Amino acid sequence: MVDKYDSASAEYFPDIGEIPYSPEAEPAQTLVFKHYNAKQVIHGKTMEEWLRFSVCFWHTFRGTGSDPFGAATLSRPWDDGSNTMANAKRRLRAGFEFFTKLGIKFWAFHDRDIAPEGRDLAETNRNLDEIVDLALELQTKTGVRLLWNTCNLFSHPRYMNGAASNPDAHVFAYAAAQVKKSLDIAKKLGAGNFVFWGGREGYHTLLNTQILSELSHMATFFKMAVAYKKKIGFTGTFLIEPKPKEPTKHQYDYDAMTVIGFLKHFGLENDFKLNVEPNHTTLAGHAYEHDIVMASAFGLLGSVDSNTGSPDLGWDTDQFPMDVKNATLVMKTVIEQNGLQPGGLNFDCKVRRESTDLRDMFVAHIGAMDTFARGLKCATRMMEDKFMSQHVQTRYSSYEKGIGKKIEENSTSLEELEVTTDKSMVFPYLAIV
Amino acid sequence: MVDKYDSASAEYFPDIGEIPYSPEAEPAQTLVFKHYNAKQVIHGKTMEEWLRFSVCFWHTFRGTGSDPFGAATLSRPWDDGSNTMANAKRRLRAGFEFFTKLGIKFWAFHDRDIAPEGRDLAETNRNLDEIVDLALELQTKTGVRLLWNTCNLFSHPRYMNGAASNPDAHVFAYAAAQVKKSLDIAKKLGAGNFVFWGGREGYHTLLNTQILSELSHMATFFKMAVAYKKKIGFTGTFLIEPKPKEPTKHQYDYDAMTVIGFLKHFGLENDFKLNVEPNHTTLAGHAYEHDIVMASAFGLLGSVDSNTGSPDLGWDTDQFPMDVKNATLVMKTVIEQNGLQPGGLNFDCKVRRESTDLRDMFVAHIGAMDTFARGLKCATRMMEDKFMSQHVQTRYSSYEKGIGKKIEENSTSLEELEVTTDKSMVFPYLAIV
Amino acid sequence: MVDKYDSASAEYFPDIGEIPYSPEAEPAQTLVFKHYNAKQVIHGKTMEEWLRFSVCFWHTFRGTGSDPFGAATLSRPWDDGSNTMANAKRRLRAGFEFFTKLGIKFWAFHDRDIAPEGRDLAETNRNLDEIVDLALELQTKTGVRLLWNTCNLFSHPRYMNGAASNPDAHVFAYAAAQVKKSLDIAKKLGAGNFVFWGGREGYHTLLNTQILSELSHMATFFKMAVAYKKKIGFTGTFLIEPKPKEPTKHQYDYDAMTVIGFLKHFGLENDFKLNVEPNHTTLAGHAYEHDIVMASAFGLLGSVDSNTGSPDLGWDTDQFPMDVKNATLVMKTVIEQNGLQPGGLNFDCKVRRESTDLRDMFVAHIGAMDTFARGLKCATRMMEDKFMSQHVQTRYSSYEKGIGKKIEENSTSLEELEVTTDKSMVFPYLAIV
Amino acid sequence: MVDKYDSASAEYFPDIGEIPYSPEAEPAQTLVFKHYNAKQVIHGKTMEEWLRFSVCFWHTFRGTGSDPFGAATLSRPWDDGSNTMANAKRRLRAGFEFFTKLGIKFWAFHDRDIAPEGRDLAETNRNLDEIVDLALELQTKTGVRLLWNTCNLFSHPRYMNGAASNPDAHVFAYAAAQVKKSLDIAKKLGAGNFVFWGGREGYHTLLNTQILSELSHMATFFKMAVAYKKKIGFTGTFLIEPKPKEPTKHQYDYDAMTVIGFLKHFGLENDFKLNVEPNHTTLAGHAYEHDIVMASAFGLLGSVDSNTGSPDLGWDTDQFPMDVKNATLVMKTVIEQNGLQPGGLNFDCKVRRESTDLRDMFVAHIGAMDTFARGLKCATRMMEDKFMSQHVQTRYSSYEKGIGKKIEENSTSLEELEVTTDKSMVFPYLAIV
Repeated sequence: MVDKYDSASAEYFPDIGEIPYSPEAEPAQTLVFKHYNAKQVIHGKTMEEWLRFSVCFWHTFRGTGSDPFGAATLSRPWDDGSNTMANAKRRLRAGFEFFTKLGIKFWAFHDRDIAPEGRDLAETNRNLDEIVDLALELQTKTGVRLLWNTCNLFSHPRYMNGAASNPDAHVFAYAAAQVKKSLDIAKKLGAGNFVFWGGREGYHTLLNTQILSELSHMATFFKMAVAYKKKIGFTGTFLIEPKPKEPTKHQYDYDAMTVIGFLKHFGLENDFKLNVEPNHTTLAGHAYEHDIVMASAFGLLGSVDSNTGSPDLGWDTDQFPMDVKNATLVMKTVIEQNGLQPGGLNFDCKVRRESTDLRDMFVAHIGAMDTFARGLKCATRMMEDKFMSQHVQTRYSSYEKGIGKKIEENSTSLEELEVTTDKSMVFPYLAIV
Repeated sequence: MVDKYDSASAEYFPDIGEIPYSPEAEPAQTLVFKHYNAKQVIHGKTMEEWLRFSVCFWHTFRGTGSDPFGAATLSRPWDDGSNTMANAKRRLRAGFEFFTKLGIKFWAFHDRDIAPEGRDLAETNRNLDEIVDLALELQTKTGVRLLWNTCNLFSHPRYMNGAASNPDAHVFAYAAAQVKKSLDIAKKLGAGNFVFWGGREGYHTLLNTQILSELSHMATFFKMAVAYKKKIGFTGTFLIEPKPKEPTKHQYDYDAMTVIGFLKHFGLENDFKLNVEPNHTTLAGHAYEHDIVMASAFGLLGSVDSNTGSPDLGWDTDQFPMDVKNATLVMKTVIEQNGLQPGGLNFDCKVRRESTDLRDMFVAHIGAMDTFARGLKCATRMMEDKFMSQHVQTRYSSYEKGIGKKIEENSTSLEELEVTTDKSMVFPYLAIV
Repeated sequence: MVDKYDSASAEYFPDIGEIPYSPEAEPAQTLVFKHYNAKQVIHGKTMEEWLRFSVCFWHTFRGTGSDPFGAATLSRPWDDGSNTMANAKRRLRAGFEFFTKLGIKFWAFHDRDIAPEGRDLAETNRNLDEIVDLALELQTKTGVRLLWNTCNLFSHPRYMNGAASNPDAHVFAYAAAQVKKSLDIAKKLGAGNFVFWGGREGYHTLLNTQILSELSHMATFFKMAVAYKKKIGFTGTFLIEPKPKEPTKHQYDYDAMTVIGFLKHFGLENDFKLNVEPNHTTLAGHAYEHDIVMASAFGLLGSVDSNTGSPDLGWDTDQFPMDVKNATLVMKTVIEQNGLQPGGLNFDCKVRRESTDLRDMFVAHIGAMDTFARGLKCATRMMEDKFMSQHVQTRYSSYEKGIGKKIEENSTSLEELEVTTDKSMVFPYLAIV
Repeated sequence: MVDKYDSASAEYFPDIGEIPYSPEAEPAQTLVFKHYNAKQVIHGKTMEEWLRFSVCFWHTFRGTGSDPFGAATLSRPWDDGSNTMANAKRRLRAGFEFFTKLGIKFWAFHDRDIAPEGRDLAETNRNLDEIVDLALELQTKTGVRLLWNTCNLFSHPRYMNGAASNPDAHVFAYAAAQVKKSLDIAKKLGAGNFVFWGGREGYHTLLNTQILSELSHMATFFKMAVAYKKKIGFTGTFLIEPKPKEPTKHQYDYDAMTVIGFLKHFGLENDFKLNVEPNHTTLAGHAYEHDIVMASAFGLLGSVDSNTGSPDLGWDTDQFPMDVKNATLVMKTVIEQNGLQPGGLNFDCKVRRESTDLRDMFVAHIGAMDTFARGLKCATRMMEDKFMSQHVQTRYSSYEKGIGKKIEENSTSLEELEVTTDKSMVFPYLAIV
């Protein structure tokens, strides 16, 4: 039944062509872009250059619709559910057709998404090699590039107590071997970045946990990865992805500032940036854009896992981002730091398990791309009319001269400020707002 | 009417004597300790030494029961509501009688709690001087010591946009002058610590905020405080108190790790520790004990603002801590770091606005003290029977030898671990739990 | 100083005129409507008829900017802060000028907002009478009408344990007297509705609370209000406003379904509708539009307190609604039930305490009005192109015939459905989505 | 390998005997009860009678440790993971050994837990019949009884859009057939109750949902179940289990008051009670004990799914209840309504996926049973010393006479209360607290 999809010339989405830009389309036309126009120049770059969209392989080609309360609902005609190399190849080919028809130039994957785990690590790695060869061929053929790859260090039972923070050194060692292999793959496929998401690096109860040991082990793990990266000459950016909780009760990479604190403490701040996912940011109790702005302020915003949750839900739903205001706030920061490159906007999103139609995969991505195109246009408008930015500049203008300048330059003291204060202020005093 | 309370020999709680230890008391007897026995030795110290309870002046002697939806409900016979020095002195004398009758050896205050704000800073400081002289006299007379003092840099309208992070340099300067005065007071009263709680150091919207500038200004502010502390020879510990939000939408000192990241980034980690308040910890989305454990792991737990919230409420309720399990988890960490000195357990709590009886002030503190006495006893039992600690030690034992030891010593590599892995593991593999 | 505002011809906002509709205005022009065009007909009614905006008197003319951590920041030139009748009249005149310049045709108030509380209830009521006469005069003169009034049964200390649910019957009685007076006022001013918000009808701890007694007392209170309403011939709608918590830990009117359950249980469902405030809805853990849709589905959506919170904050911030998507979802429901009349969209919102400029009062309302005008236009577009509604109709079409129709008519049984099932289905079966 | 477990005389937990009561046991002794003493009489009944513990079959015998981020971790020696009748029988026999060794007298199950789903409904029902015969045999042999059974109407893809609220009438019909079968089973096994948990009765977006239709269909479904129950003479109690969300964004049975509102609206309140799960209560934003107290106040508390979550987590973790204070609050309500019979305390809990040892199943249940035994003892003490209850009685005493009595009897009016008020009160007035 799935045989017909094995050929290199098979078409996986025969009813769907390349998605055109059609700004005047009707609501019922859902397979068109109404806002995203890849080559349109805006604020000095093309939309494509600003947005750097990426499809995530795990949700979009490995998601089944299962959840903790129910079985798989999504069936794809080319996928027989088997853990075979043939199935893995069909999924990959389907993926590249999908990327191409959407006009998305980047993809991202976990090692265990693309190739089946074998009976031992050697077999697993051979499987990976074979699939990576195909991926390289498809990348070359389509021009689609690898935004980042990563290791799945959380699904296998061996990782139930963590990987780099595992209380068992043998699991740590296994994870190290897995990362080594994935760094080789990153180099081979020309990845722009490599991501670490510590899904089970955290704790369920502090009663059985030596926090500082676990954090130190994680730091050691990262240092070894940096050493190996340099050794093999991989030039992509290392990214840590914060998440506050789920699956663990507390994840060590809680939010941007927590990761920044960790990096500073262990002297890793020059070797890592952040891959911020807003669905994780909101789960940490922050506003949607908070971690993006915070990471950028510290010069550490590397890439964005572009998705959203529902504010009334307390778990990660990985929904497609459809809120123009949120997209605007993200793109404002992206423009202010002159783009995310070599990072991008990776759609770490999944269609709902009730969205069982194949075309929903397209509709969802198109909606998200249009949302971010609108966000880009809105952010550009805000920046170009300067209404907001001039207000902000005025707001802080007292630091440009006099005692403010001395504060700015860290060249004053409590004593000097006390003297200044007594002479210059009338009370009650309201600050400039 | 309040005149009779002006004399140095006035009694403010005439119906209540010193609270005795009476472990067999009935439920109806609420003015006795059933668990807290100050001089009882447990795990090598007296309860009093482990617990170092402190009464906060603001809630207990300045709280009125008002809330955003209602007016003051609490009336104290000695307090006529006036902003006079006489009233300030009555409150202070009442306070020291209260501390003494409870058998609590520490207190804590904000500058604006103890003395009225004058027409200008000079008058305000004169008011402070006069009250501080009285405080010193009462401290000497009663043996009660100052756990910490702090500046109120959030209530006055001038601070509506922050103090050290204010966009107006003149407000920054005013705050600097205020802190200088309070450091002088800290020295004079022999404070064990000095606390910074940045209630309005944060943002309401990122659209009008230059995050990195504001954080840098805060760091400058702290550096000036450190310089002045050294200059005047104040030897207490500087403490930052994390809080995630409220009154601001986002407070820069979100939680322990955020503050640690800030301190590391700006090179302040040797000059500050943390004053952790669990009601703030839970508002940040963590477990009650999380920030206490985290701060302690990094060697930065200085003191505890001992209180609690309700998990179903999203604002700071500053309730008296009455949960033995939570108290046990706090005390376990305190014992593990061999005490909080020069910090302590400051009851940053308020009686409910419906608890209008004067005796409720006592009942609430007694309940909290008994709760922590029980927590101390439980934690001691846990540590002395070693059941849990031996499990934990076994859990991490693989890092004591072989490849684990090399990881611990940071003397291995991905390559070496890969080799080790292939030889020593059988799959599927379940970690030691 | 405030004397000049005492005259009936005083102007309170001399620098601001009537707000014009100017769709092409620049970002810097903030005192114009860019979307709201009162007389523009859309989907069969004018914008003004659909939106029925109302200004709330409490936040906009009694708000001071104080919060639990800080003092008042907002000063209005006509308001000397005194609790005098003269001050009350100045506020009221300022209010009607404000309503008129904004072009808003409705207002709403609590009894204690508009007139000072006297030494006893008789004096309080005389104060009210005098102010209500002025209000009637101003209503007649300007054409502004009263959307609703309500009693403040939560601010005074007597209500600290509730009003209709107070454990003390004398407080219940006092609240009854207060409501009687306000119903008389509602009739006199021609209020379209009368609102009950039970701010302190709830509990702080179940340990001191007889839940069912308190709910029964509330029901009794409502029944007496219905009887009195009929007696005096007041024809406005009675509305209950749900809120989950704050100031109490649990408020009995938690959310729409809770109130509906209460009304049904006590036989009050024909005498009350709901006044839904989305900031309360989100605090109850629901999506912004949830309670509006739910109340409307049960035929009980009477009016909307139009505002918003921040999803990351756990208390009521009463922000001006500025999210077009949310406004669209609200207006979709409003259109589906053919309007809110005699209810409306009351802006139960306050300027931030940092927004100290007088003109911010206008800017905030204009922004919210434009947001809802956009929401109205978007909702209309959704409904008129029928793309969504046709999908929904198809989704449920199986209930229009055969076994579905029998289910719809409640004329089948488990036994019949079992037989039907066996014959007609193939497994695995995926529902029409 | 699993063959040896097929015999009726197989032992599944050979290393573990019946759990004894041993109040003086050391911490290291984890297979003893330190508080639960089944036959001990307390407050007029045995512990066993008050507590009526039940083991849930789904988590304890069908749980695998898988979560959304990871694979199964728990392997049981008798379970080969197959979907065969032989495997189903082994699980069931293991279950009854487990119940017996723990001394737990009740169990609970979903239809799809105990028997494999067949190729069609007829085969599925034949499988059920065969297993139910075995269950009856084991119940008779061990004396363990069925607390309740229920239908799984949420796991199969056919139910992805709900069961009784499904937009497709054919799915509704299928669910009806499934419930009919389970009611027959309930009768055959002598179930004390039958539970409805509407896991997917809710919505993901209001944009595709006709709320009132779906609620009406649910009501129709329940009415048919009531009719069939009466027809077959099943005398157990029908229970609805509230949950606010997960897997759906909004579940119709949000919390106790929502369900009560639903039952009242559709005239079902005499045919249903509630099965309250505190982990669901806290996810709805309430205190742990809230729904239990609320349901009991309305005479509708039928049974308890005894478990807990973590207040800092936003999803259902189904942890074993280990908090004595919470257990006390639950048992206080249970005692006040004189027990839960025919309901009970069903442990709807699962061992953590890291708790891979077989003995952890016992340790977890023992800990929870001891916690509730302590809760029972504490609640009894509170009730017997009457300290709290007398306070509460006094608090409401004004409703026993005079105007309070008239309010209680609903025989007064706003007018009469106004008159009373004016004469009897002095202001400011503070309520009795």
